[in-house]
Amino acid sequence: MQELTPETITGAVLDQMSTTTDPRLKQIMASAVKHLHAFAMDVNLTPAEWIKGIAFMTEVGKICTPARQEFILLSDTLGLSALVNGLHDNTAMEEGTHTSLLGPFYREASPALAAGSQIAKTVKAGSEIVLYGHVSDVNGRPIANATVSIWQTGASGLYDIQENAAAIDYRGVFSTDANGLYLLRTVRPIGYSIPMDGPVGDMVRAQKRHGMRPAHIHFLVGAPGYRELVTALYLRDDPHLEDDVVFGSSGDLAVDIAPKDADCPIKGLPSIRFDMRLSRETAADKAGGRVGADPSAILKQPA
Amino acid sequence: MQELTPETITGAVLDQMSTTTDPRLKQIMASAVKHLHAFAMDVNLTPAEWIKGIAFMTEVGKICTPARQEFILLSDTLGLSALVNGLHDNTAMEEGTHTSLLGPFYREASPALAAGSQIAKTVKAGSEIVLYGHVSDVNGRPIANATVSIWQTGASGLYDIQENAAAIDYRGVFSTDANGLYLLRTVRPIGYSIPMDGPVGDMVRAQKRHGMRPAHIHFLVGAPGYRELVTALYLRDDPHLEDDVVFGSSGDLAVDIAPKDADCPIKGLPSIRFDMRLSRETAADKAGGRVGADPSAILKQPA
Repeated sequence: MQELTPETITGAVLDQMSTTTDPRLKQIMASAVKHLHAFAMDVNLTPAEWIKGIAFMTEVGKICTPARQEFILLSDTLGLSALVNGLHDNTAMEEGTHTSLLGPFYREASPALAAGSQIAKTVKAGSEIVLYGHVSDVNGRPIANATVSIWQTGASGLYDIQENAAAIDYRGVFSTDANGLYLLRTVRPIGYSIPMDGPVGDMVRAQKRHGMRPAHIHFLVGAPGYRELVTALYLRDDPHLEDDVVFGSSGDLAVDIAPKDADCPIKGLPSIRFDMRLSRETAADKAGGRVGADPSAILKQPA
Repeated sequence: MQELTPETITGAVLDQMSTTTDPRLKQIMASAVKHLHAFAMDVNLTPAEWIKGIAFMTEVGKICTPARQEFILLSDTLGLSALVNGLHDNTAMEEGTHTSLLGPFYREASPALAAGSQIAKTVKAGSEIVLYGHVSDVNGRPIANATVSIWQTGASGLYDIQENAAAIDYRGVFSTDANGLYLLRTVRPIGYSIPMDGPVGDMVRAQKRHGMRPAHIHFLVGAPGYRELVTALYLRDDPHLEDDVVFGSSGDLAVDIAPKDADCPIKGLPSIRFDMRLSRETAADKAGGRVGADPSAILKQPA
């Protein structure tokens, strides 16, 4: 038999994987193996570096729980999630509002709330704001009964689940009215650090990155016949708008908090207006899926 | 601020990582990001496929224990471990015996045994063999007092730790004598399947691969001043010598079981002779490390 060398092993692996029945799995794994091997050869990876990589991935796996998804955080901090989002945007038939990261803090178990409700259980004086906007199609026609799921951090810069695994706070699901309007009260979002106490935090520190995300509020918007929209608004005046550690912020998603807005349906509070346009759904979108998931759903699903 | 697109995001990530202090870490991560992004773009990875990947890696992490290293198994089945071994071989000053995979079953806690000892606690009639050979430098000069660590599966095709997490069996550490001879009794190695009850097993099944390794015995050999040798012998008549699921088998490491060998120091039993040549150690080897580790040591070490 032939001896495998660095020059011949990639071909031997592709050959052994050539029996894969599913053509898409075959294509994905062949590309993954080619790039993985090319990476090891490009940097002339040493055994000691390889075992460090194995140990790193093992630590990433070890820290994952139904409340924490370190592999998504790794994908986010390496820009992979933003890239997959961008590739997905490129397949849209119509150009709606751009996507941003779902991130690891989305929860399927969010309460349905009436229009105008405050999503934070406790509100410090001066922090309350109104958040509203219109959901429309790409031509500006309002979409009624769209589902608008919203989540953000509280005053501490943590999501509910980071403060207490059982808590549900700073999140809610709203429906748009006949004019496509969604309307709620919340608290000012503040910039925050990604979780830095795990292996991804160690990586980000070794890279001398700050680990901060600019202040933002997450959205997941759906309506029958339209492409699901995963996006976020970002506060324009945040110092980290330009260098988000997870590459989610974008100029076209930046908003201001208006001290007074004549159009705002609730008076007497500062407000953010964030309108969103949904593109029509295609057959490819239904198969395309979502960049992200509730971490508890990931750990529940079979391998 | 600029909006990130699939065309610009790789540059943005490299830019944000450019502050990395350690030049080697900077180089490795830049190459990893470039290849990871190129992979996603090459196959136009969809969000649904991305989340399947996240779920797969999460399952690989979840099944790892001090007794099971699924990330090493993944690296092995994708040919990465064999590639890193081959790259490491290429850096040797002298051409000694080629390396093969350490695999996920090496254990630091192996008993030191006297020459001629049987490493299996129970031996079925007809299965006992002698294993011996000479450890020398590349010029054939014997190396005395070399440490020869040996491990293999038992009659069931499982390693001790797969049968019982606390068991130590079919493994031992020997020293070479003044002539470089190591000598032991063991049982015939048999081909076996990699663990197929985890996510790597699911992958291998989806690829319609058999999951088998040809019959082999592992070696880890060390002597002061010489490059540590991680290798294995393979039985030449095994049907899977040519298509080892982890790409470890190699023609130059294939041996036969001799029914009668006049050179064998123990008479009356079939025997395998496997000589090994160690190359001299260089400064690079000391930093280069080993392709593999005791899984319990990986989970112990800090991230």
